[in-house]
Amino acid sequence: MTTTVLWVLGAGILALIFAAWRASVVARADVGTERMAEISGYIQEGAMAFLAAEYKVLSVFVIAVAGVLAGSYWSRGTPLIALSFIVGSICSGLAGYFGMRVATLANARTSAAARTSLIPALNIAFTGGAVMGMSVVGLGILGLTSLFLLYTSVLGLGTDVASITGDVLTLISGYSLGASSIALFARVGGGIYTKAADVGADLVGKVEAGLPEDDPRNPAAIADCVGDNVGDVAGMGADLFESDGGAIIGAMILGVPFAAGQLGIVEGPAQLQYVMLPLVLAGLGIVVSIASTFFVRTSEDGNPQTALNLGIFGSVIVMIPVAWVAISQMTGFGFGDDPVLRILGAMVIGLIGGVVIALATEHYTATGRKPVNDIAEASLTGEATNIIAGLGVGMVSTAIPILTIAAALLGCYQLAGLYGIAMGGLGMLCTVGVQLAVDAYGPIADNAGGISEMSELPPEVRERTDKLDAVGNTTAAIGKGFAIGSAALTALALFSAYRTQSNLSELDLLEPIVMAGRFVGGLVPFIFSSMAMNAVGDAAQEMITEVRRQFREIPGLLEGTAKAEYAHCVEISTEAAIKRMIVPGLMAVLVPVVVGLVFGKEALGGVLAGVTVAGVLMARFMSNAGGAWDNAKKTIESGDHGGKGSDAHKAAVVGDTVGDPFKDTAGPALNILIKLMAVVSLVLAPLIA
Amino acid sequence: MTTTVLWVLGAGILALIFAAWRASVVARADVGTERMAEISGYIQEGAMAFLAAEYKVLSVFVIAVAGVLAGSYWSRGTPLIALSFIVGSICSGLAGYFGMRVATLANARTSAAARTSLIPALNIAFTGGAVMGMSVVGLGILGLTSLFLLYTSVLGLGTDVASITGDVLTLISGYSLGASSIALFARVGGGIYTKAADVGADLVGKVEAGLPEDDPRNPAAIADCVGDNVGDVAGMGADLFESDGGAIIGAMILGVPFAAGQLGIVEGPAQLQYVMLPLVLAGLGIVVSIASTFFVRTSEDGNPQTALNLGIFGSVIVMIPVAWVAISQMTGFGFGDDPVLRILGAMVIGLIGGVVIALATEHYTATGRKPVNDIAEASLTGEATNIIAGLGVGMVSTAIPILTIAAALLGCYQLAGLYGIAMGGLGMLCTVGVQLAVDAYGPIADNAGGISEMSELPPEVRERTDKLDAVGNTTAAIGKGFAIGSAALTALALFSAYRTQSNLSELDLLEPIVMAGRFVGGLVPFIFSSMAMNAVGDAAQEMITEVRRQFREIPGLLEGTAKAEYAHCVEISTEAAIKRMIVPGLMAVLVPVVVGLVFGKEALGGVLAGVTVAGVLMARFMSNAGGAWDNAKKTIESGDHGGKGSDAHKAAVVGDTVGDPFKDTAGPALNILIKLMAVVSLVLAPLIA
Repeated sequence: MTTTVLWVLGAGILALIFAAWRASVVARADVGTERMAEISGYIQEGAMAFLAAEYKVLSVFVIAVAGVLAGSYWSRGTPLIALSFIVGSICSGLAGYFGMRVATLANARTSAAARTSLIPALNIAFTGGAVMGMSVVGLGILGLTSLFLLYTSVLGLGTDVASITGDVLTLISGYSLGASSIALFARVGGGIYTKAADVGADLVGKVEAGLPEDDPRNPAAIADCVGDNVGDVAGMGADLFESDGGAIIGAMILGVPFAAGQLGIVEGPAQLQYVMLPLVLAGLGIVVSIASTFFVRTSEDGNPQTALNLGIFGSVIVMIPVAWVAISQMTGFGFGDDPVLRILGAMVIGLIGGVVIALATEHYTATGRKPVNDIAEASLTGEATNIIAGLGVGMVSTAIPILTIAAALLGCYQLAGLYGIAMGGLGMLCTVGVQLAVDAYGPIADNAGGISEMSELPPEVRERTDKLDAVGNTTAAIGKGFAIGSAALTALALFSAYRTQSNLSELDLLEPIVMAGRFVGGLVPFIFSSMAMNAVGDAAQEMITEVRRQFREIPGLLEGTAKAEYAHCVEISTEAAIKRMIVPGLMAVLVPVVVGLVFGKEALGGVLAGVTVAGVLMARFMSNAGGAWDNAKKTIESGDHGGKGSDAHKAAVVGDTVGDPFKDTAGPALNILIKLMAVVSLVLAPLIA
Repeated sequence: MTTTVLWVLGAGILALIFAAWRASVVARADVGTERMAEISGYIQEGAMAFLAAEYKVLSVFVIAVAGVLAGSYWSRGTPLIALSFIVGSICSGLAGYFGMRVATLANARTSAAARTSLIPALNIAFTGGAVMGMSVVGLGILGLTSLFLLYTSVLGLGTDVASITGDVLTLISGYSLGASSIALFARVGGGIYTKAADVGADLVGKVEAGLPEDDPRNPAAIADCVGDNVGDVAGMGADLFESDGGAIIGAMILGVPFAAGQLGIVEGPAQLQYVMLPLVLAGLGIVVSIASTFFVRTSEDGNPQTALNLGIFGSVIVMIPVAWVAISQMTGFGFGDDPVLRILGAMVIGLIGGVVIALATEHYTATGRKPVNDIAEASLTGEATNIIAGLGVGMVSTAIPILTIAAALLGCYQLAGLYGIAMGGLGMLCTVGVQLAVDAYGPIADNAGGISEMSELPPEVRERTDKLDAVGNTTAAIGKGFAIGSAALTALALFSAYRTQSNLSELDLLEPIVMAGRFVGGLVPFIFSSMAMNAVGDAAQEMITEVRRQFREIPGLLEGTAKAEYAHCVEISTEAAIKRMIVPGLMAVLVPVVVGLVFGKEALGGVLAGVTVAGVLMARFMSNAGGAWDNAKKTIESGDHGGKGSDAHKAAVVGDTVGDPFKDTAGPALNILIKLMAVVSLVLAPLIA
């Protein structure tokens, strides 16, 4: 066992070495003109200031929770769960830091490279993204395996199957708790930051003052660029860090029940192989991801879209045979044997499900398709019909993802029980390293565009970075499909793990305490989204007022002869984000604790059931409505229905603005929320069993 | 037993006699000027044309479903369920017809009475509402008891407890199915009609052309008034008709399990008393409701609000001792005996829950409170922040109702098991007769205002009818609290009844088939709402285009020298409503049938669990967001933040328009949807048991 874990640990270290190497490549690239370096400096400064403020608040949270964990588990002899929690939190924080550090280096360098041609710019942006991706998976595996080795080999806590699955995995679940709680705060905080800045920059700068996007005269322009980094880079990094960890740990816990129950394996070490398998697959996924980054290359007249698709789909296609070999090796069955095919089948079902969700997401949110065209057309009759149409699209867009999740659930379960469901979720995330590289590439290209604009580079530079950005958006939709599918399956796997760990034999839907729990669980995503929406709304109002004030009070600002006070806007976003991320984050942690301790484990089971269904639905509704509104606006901006400046365009801008907190604050945070609540319950399970 | 049922039947007939008498009072009142009679005639004509078109389509549905029911149940020897279904459908349709008939008589007469003073106008409007209320409860009880007598006394199907609870109540559940399906179509159709007309009239007539509300030059003005009748009168009547029926039948089915299980009563006839109790309480509720209509009177300088509150709360307060006596008499226990106090306690918990929900609803949607003021303030920074704030308020407003429902659920169950939950739901609806009278009074007063405006009566007439309308809105919020609470509890009672009837001993939340069912069930309210929103959005776009066309093409229309083509707008609303109500209505019926037949009774149990939680949440979210937007607009119109015509007002009008389909189409229909799906499952239960 130890050898296997050491091997996986090696994959984690490899990822970090690769990330360091790629980061040095980015750092050595040309940063461009002095003006570009200056603006990039502002952005980096703002982003790092936010991260510092955020981590200061979170460190209080981490210390407090670690204390509570150590105290609660002291009597059970497992206070080390607090250590796991701290390690999980720190690794998550470091992943965000590394990613943002390189993203804020890569933005100006991408812009500088775009002065000559498209390909060098693609390379820099993608390399920056790859550093992010590999940091996340590398740190994730490194932290997890280090803890595992510490508890088993060093401290000797896991001597047999029972102690490993009982004690050690309980301790390890603290790691997932740390990762998930930091992720939720980072997503909410980053989401509030970026959207407050974006809404402020758009509504006053673009609509009222008529400035183009990212104009240096716009006081919120720097805050807007910072927002892309703290929301789309750091927030997303923490998000996928926790997804990966949750999927691995959820599958590990369900390994023994599968081996013992479905396969009837009674011998101890053979059972353990099913516990280690998810870890091994994650390690192999890292190697495949690193290799896949080399697929992302194209010639000057080639299509960057094809390059990125090659990275994503290439990694998935390579991963399948690799996983096949690994499953066979780990379980000791032949390639064609039933258990191997069942586990592999569950992974493949997960992957197919992810692709279906991605295609459905694309259908409902991409330009040129009926839903987005309908919203654009509804803009002709004003803001109200645009909003009604967008909400309608968002609601109906939940159908295919939900039906796919339901089908994947049944299929994976049919093949390999609850372990199959966990494997389906893990399958989508094995190659998260390269998926995240593609995701993080988007905001780097976006920032590069902003820097080109603010440094007054020739318009063809902006055109090139826009092209890179647009390509990134489409490919990122695929990644999102995997993220959503895996969130639902992982949440269910963690829910099942909670039941296993809390000895909850039956959870009858019609027991009133379970029913009541389901209502309360279903309520959480609504309250949570409301808080996120209100935070963005309030911060945006502040930002609007500040930008209007600067235009009014700084003489010569609009004429370009005076400089905007960027720092004020950065401060407004930072303060609002830090202040308003706390309550929703705490709610997600406290609801399961209070329900579990006061009303018992059945009620908590009901809460998890309610939050999973309502959370997945609301996440899809909000994310897709937001994406569709965004692209309806772009459709009109490209010339339809009167084009830019028309009444229809004004209506579409309103829709896009409403969609901002939907798709970038509340929506993605709900994916984390459902898993965080399940992990909190899992950690709580031994106390209420 | 037969005597008891005959007595209840008598109460139903009494309600109808009372309704006929009050209707004759309305008919004899002065209709006002020729112009008023003419406009009232247009409205009546439009409303009746819609009802005729709607019933034509629904009759096809009723015949088809009746055929399927008769065929499916033939082999089980119970094809009579088709008869119950037809009777339920017809009674529901008649209730809508009677109510709308008198409402369209009362509107001009209220307006005529308002020419002299407030009190006569209040009396006419409330009398019209009372006819509606008593028709609904009278027909509801009459249909139900007639069927019961037919099956037991005439056909002799129910000879003992087993045959009555098994066969006869299964047959009777067809009645509830008829009522619920007609109600869903009526709510959706009426909701689409009224909001398409309203949005069209507001956005073009008021905002673009600057006409006042209900101006005769507005081509959509008549359609708007017709909409109030088909949506708020006929739709709501069918809604409460089905609520009442569902609550009674749900409680009846759970009577024997309660008597046998919780009380340990083994003797047959004594068990039956618990089956008959809900029917008796409903009958007594009618008598109390009739008596309570006489509480609604005030002097000329008195407050109409107090008068209406007296009606609602007076009926509730009188009902409690009446119910106490009835429970004691029916069960044979003394007033202070445990079973009596338990059943009464459950009813009282239901009533208190209803009041709490009503107060919470008022807090989040009434003018002068923080949530509505926040939305009004957010309008200062534009449409987008108004919408974000409104969505935020809608989402957070779900908290108190949901927690109250969860608490009521636990409390009622603690006292009297599942029967207690059903009794909690029934408690809120016992005096539905007078509640509905107050509800239906609102649209009559609203219509009276429209007629005053269009007949160019002096402004003080409009002021008086506006005052009546405003009072009605507040009191209606109380009624809505009861409707929501009872919908949730009744849905759960019907769900439990489904389990009883389908012999589903265990329904484990973590069984994958149940999980998958929950996802699918949770999805239904989203798809349903999306369809409703899109229907309103599309119809509103058509209406906007038509109104713009008339302003452009009819010379002299805006100057008041030419007449608008009202009929075109009425046609657009009618066609859109009829065409677009079909798919969402059929979906609600077909989803449980398909899931139940293809995936089995466990999967269907999961669907019901998912739809109940998601449906209640979405209903609250949408209804409250809509109400809050509406009143935020009114807050600005009353002079805050720049008042009418300011930019903030424009933003608030957009919010109000988005809220229209939320609060009057999708939101209230979801209350019916969750019960309809439960009733469909209940009817299906014997086939999949």
